[in-house]
Amino acid sequence: MNFASDNVTGVAPEIMDALARANETVAMMPYGADEITARVETAFAELFQHEVAVFPVATGTAANALSMSVMCPPYGAIYCLEESHANADECGAPEFYTGGAKLVAVPEVEGKMTASALDARLAGRGPADGVHVVQPAAVTITQASEMGTVYSADDLAALGETARKWGLKLHVDGARFANAVAAGNQSPADLTWRAGVDIMSFGATKNGAMAAEAVVVFDPALAETLGFRRKRGAHLFSKMRFLSAQLEAYVKDDLWLRHARHANSLAARMATALDSAPGVELDYPVEANEIFASAPKAVWQKLQAAGFIFYTWGDAERPSARFVTAFDTDDQHVDAFAAALK
Amino acid sequence: MNFASDNVTGVAPEIMDALARANETVAMMPYGADEITARVETAFAELFQHEVAVFPVATGTAANALSMSVMCPPYGAIYCLEESHANADECGAPEFYTGGAKLVAVPEVEGKMTASALDARLAGRGPADGVHVVQPAAVTITQASEMGTVYSADDLAALGETARKWGLKLHVDGARFANAVAAGNQSPADLTWRAGVDIMSFGATKNGAMAAEAVVVFDPALAETLGFRRKRGAHLFSKMRFLSAQLEAYVKDDLWLRHARHANSLAARMATALDSAPGVELDYPVEANEIFASAPKAVWQKLQAAGFIFYTWGDAERPSARFVTAFDTDDQHVDAFAAALK
Amino acid sequence: MNFASDNVTGVAPEIMDALARANETVAMMPYGADEITARVETAFAELFQHEVAVFPVATGTAANALSMSVMCPPYGAIYCLEESHANADECGAPEFYTGGAKLVAVPEVEGKMTASALDARLAGRGPADGVHVVQPAAVTITQASEMGTVYSADDLAALGETARKWGLKLHVDGARFANAVAAGNQSPADLTWRAGVDIMSFGATKNGAMAAEAVVVFDPALAETLGFRRKRGAHLFSKMRFLSAQLEAYVKDDLWLRHARHANSLAARMATALDSAPGVELDYPVEANEIFASAPKAVWQKLQAAGFIFYTWGDAERPSARFVTAFDTDDQHVDAFAAALK
Amino acid sequence: MNFASDNVTGVAPEIMDALARANETVAMMPYGADEITARVETAFAELFQHEVAVFPVATGTAANALSMSVMCPPYGAIYCLEESHANADECGAPEFYTGGAKLVAVPEVEGKMTASALDARLAGRGPADGVHVVQPAAVTITQASEMGTVYSADDLAALGETARKWGLKLHVDGARFANAVAAGNQSPADLTWRAGVDIMSFGATKNGAMAAEAVVVFDPALAETLGFRRKRGAHLFSKMRFLSAQLEAYVKDDLWLRHARHANSLAARMATALDSAPGVELDYPVEANEIFASAPKAVWQKLQAAGFIFYTWGDAERPSARFVTAFDTDDQHVDAFAAALK
Repeated sequence: MNFASDNVTGVAPEIMDALARANETVAMMPYGADEITARVETAFAELFQHEVAVFPVATGTAANALSMSVMCPPYGAIYCLEESHANADECGAPEFYTGGAKLVAVPEVEGKMTASALDARLAGRGPADGVHVVQPAAVTITQASEMGTVYSADDLAALGETARKWGLKLHVDGARFANAVAAGNQSPADLTWRAGVDIMSFGATKNGAMAAEAVVVFDPALAETLGFRRKRGAHLFSKMRFLSAQLEAYVKDDLWLRHARHANSLAARMATALDSAPGVELDYPVEANEIFASAPKAVWQKLQAAGFIFYTWGDAERPSARFVTAFDTDDQHVDAFAAALK
Repeated sequence: MNFASDNVTGVAPEIMDALARANETVAMMPYGADEITARVETAFAELFQHEVAVFPVATGTAANALSMSVMCPPYGAIYCLEESHANADECGAPEFYTGGAKLVAVPEVEGKMTASALDARLAGRGPADGVHVVQPAAVTITQASEMGTVYSADDLAALGETARKWGLKLHVDGARFANAVAAGNQSPADLTWRAGVDIMSFGATKNGAMAAEAVVVFDPALAETLGFRRKRGAHLFSKMRFLSAQLEAYVKDDLWLRHARHANSLAARMATALDSAPGVELDYPVEANEIFASAPKAVWQKLQAAGFIFYTWGDAERPSARFVTAFDTDDQHVDAFAAALK
Repeated sequence: MNFASDNVTGVAPEIMDALARANETVAMMPYGADEITARVETAFAELFQHEVAVFPVATGTAANALSMSVMCPPYGAIYCLEESHANADECGAPEFYTGGAKLVAVPEVEGKMTASALDARLAGRGPADGVHVVQPAAVTITQASEMGTVYSADDLAALGETARKWGLKLHVDGARFANAVAAGNQSPADLTWRAGVDIMSFGATKNGAMAAEAVVVFDPALAETLGFRRKRGAHLFSKMRFLSAQLEAYVKDDLWLRHARHANSLAARMATALDSAPGVELDYPVEANEIFASAPKAVWQKLQAAGFIFYTWGDAERPSARFVTAFDTDDQHVDAFAAALK
Repeated sequence: MNFASDNVTGVAPEIMDALARANETVAMMPYGADEITARVETAFAELFQHEVAVFPVATGTAANALSMSVMCPPYGAIYCLEESHANADECGAPEFYTGGAKLVAVPEVEGKMTASALDARLAGRGPADGVHVVQPAAVTITQASEMGTVYSADDLAALGETARKWGLKLHVDGARFANAVAAGNQSPADLTWRAGVDIMSFGATKNGAMAAEAVVVFDPALAETLGFRRKRGAHLFSKMRFLSAQLEAYVKDDLWLRHARHANSLAARMATALDSAPGVELDYPVEANEIFASAPKAVWQKLQAAGFIFYTWGDAERPSARFVTAFDTDDQHVDAFAAALK
């Protein structure tokens, strides 16, 4: 009963099937010159109701770092949350791919960046410092956020407006974009280009793929050099059809949203169980598939002794814990979890 | 009947099976903390009869560029052939991963670097130039070579000796290492650490994997920072088990060598057919699974009209052509090829 | 009456003389193979009572960025104050020279980093995150600080101990090192290697040189690649004698300390005048040659109208102002300043 | 009697005077916001009869590397001669500043790149290789060349045309631009923008300055990011007036050309003496201030024994030698040289 992360999961059967089907053709031209890759771009354009350029890669870090490399020059600054994956968990990949740009932290509110916090950060930069300071170039937010909250279309539109005001490109790290879309009734378009998003990392791995993400580019100017940068970063697959097949199956017939709704609904059930358990407090609103809670350490120890796997950290007496549900989380594990909490 | 490259192929059934088996366990810890990845390191140590550190990645360019990043400082020089994949076909990935090192060309003999040519290149650098020149740091060769020839253990030992003489680390780009091992009766150990190889890119993709390569490190000092560099390069897979499963199946029960022998033997048959065809000349000895030949353009046009796919280039009247066989090349396609040449 | 910065100054006569003398010899071997450069290394070893490697450069940013490039790998982290020159005023030079390392902010106390704040920042990094996070590599502090305060030998020794505890190299940005030494009765040795400093940027430009700084290396291992990195960064002067002549004259007969004492004592007089002026508050202790104060805007406007040049920023009604004295600040300007404040 | 290089020289008296004059003003605003720097841009616009952006720096390597950083993306290629200073003598500075671009060698003719050799190199790149190969971005030539020859305006116009044909920016490394202009009757304009040059490194150091070069930009688009890159490279001087004063004096009243004519004419006399000496052969036409010659080793040994300093290399029995004259070379040394050769 592993709630440590959604990346401990395997591959959804529909995606394994797609890989098998992609393997039926003996020879396909390499490096994306295959028919499946061509179909993926069409499928994503329909999904987003917008022309897009799609660059499949295998890791979320690659999608993020490549996105940043086209938004921000080496002497630029990218605004983000301190705890964002790009800033805190990628061992400096954004710095590597941008040639040494600086990630600048904006304070968070419920795991999210607000337009007003971003605006204040930019406005508070002191006197125009010309060449002495890194130049504001981009902002990146994570959807769903690292704390399991979700940006609404309005949140994003306000961020988009602030980004444009300061001449910044807007990037969404959508490692759990499916969970964000599934959380409300807003479309992929509402949550991206309609709100001013220029480029995004579209995640599939955590939600059922083997290893497949895509840089999805709404601003055509940002796509111009991405192909060179992907190759140079060593992220261009020769047998691209197997990346593309995962992405195609992922968005086909709403598989991605069905997966995400499953994960989100189980997270909601776990949150309810936690919230009503004595001494347990939810640290953030639970809007997607991640739950953060704090409790006396005995509570967590008891759960761990009962076979539940999850991370804890922070205060010795009253640690925080994180629980993540996934596309394949077993309902009975959640029932068992709720029972164990009583 | 596609002889354009061995990367137009799909995935060998044994490797698809291994992926399915790796998917049977519901949850495995991510980023390589799984049992399959642990087994791969053991399997490679046995294969090479040497302790090794193994870093699975998904592309050959990643394996090469990461290898170079630990052999060569930003102010260093890497000696290679002009036409080596790392120098000519990776859009500058070695420069990117090393932080701007310089690739320096050594003249080729039958598609290979000779110890004497390497020695002459180093010796001919003019007066000791101190800080003004990039510092010789590494040498990289490709096995089997980009021209379909194979370095013998003696070739490599001579290169290894020259590399040590000049204080250079020795890297092998083994995108087609299986074909090189299958070509002779020399072991993986003979063709690597026994000859002084410090680190290699061990390829599997072209020979039956979906997307799986490994940096195999013989010199433990070179492994120290590789984990950070792999993560930072965005090449650390969360669901690592699926990379490792490919590599495990690839080397199990000599699958890799059976595949390579098949490809090599069909290449030999095609070479014989070409060599005896009027007007056709082999450009390089055919020792692995690639054939380079030149002929009047009508010869190539006739083959292409007959449905054979391959690249041609060079002289307008007497172009060169490349044919590549693979693990899954159909014997009957080779029969048809030989027949069409008559 | 310009108190905007100590970099609005010209060159001290002693240093102009040294340049003229260095020009008397018709031919000297280039790139540091001259006698003056050799003498500088000796002079600095005496000054610091320690063997040192000295790398003259022309800008403080070069000294800082080169220092960082040998302390921190591309996947490393450098701990600093948010407002440190390296982080805030060098347009990303440290990121450039390190190949993309991350500068991580530690909270300041009176413009200085405390050992306990550094320790807390390191300790609070959460669970050991292995390859996912940039690796702590170095700490950099500024002496005298950007806020005009001075680290004591005890402050530094505590920082040095904390740095060693966490395996960090310790760097001092000594753009105003002279002012720090002049501020107390502690020797250059006390304020560097005796306290655990591994490498420093030794400034001369602000205190009377034309354009001359030096990377001074106490840990010989850090000097090994500096020569290559300086050349590659384009900071190796062919006519090095003219950099070295400035440095030689600067430390000869305590010129640097006489200059700094002059600047410090005038700063102290200005601070006294400000402190006793109605409505004016000193923002930081004045220990070197910089004064930060806040006051009703009318106070600053009156001074500016009287011909005093200085920067103001921050609150509209009660802005902050910075005043900097220098080696050549005229006593009468300070008298006039005090008079104007009354 | 030092003919080793023109960088063994000191500073011309006119330039020392200019430094002294620039020091007369007590306070000047830093980082180029001073009147002298403003005048330099005007002076260079007149000199080149064209609007220019001028970025003073202290080393030729800085001027070259910064120029390349704005012409060429990280995934780009810069065409050059194998033996060009940028490729052979800057420890990889161009790779550093471009973020890892590749320098690609074009064969030389008399130390120069010909338009036809450049065209052939570009045309011979094989099939359009899309993202797999570094993208041709720029070409750099050295004027006067590293072999002491000079590109005519026609040579340059042909190169410029070929560069435009292939979409390349054209850069001139003018470390000895003065000697090139002095060699003929072609103007600075003829030898730069009129021939299609987009950006140049304008050298002064070897010809009488202390340490002063300038990036001179003819294509305004290339100037946009140069300020940030100069700062980030740590080449922005706080006391900029002292760089600018050198450049202003250098071009005032044709000082630079008078200096260069002196050096060139002495080189011509030395070449004549060498050419008529038994066994001595000039390796390249002598058109500027460098002479390359080969001779039996006894010839060179005799000269060295007589107190002449110069470099030799190459063949043991018949080494090559290089002699460089400068703005301050003593006529009597040349007389002595000619006498010694007899």
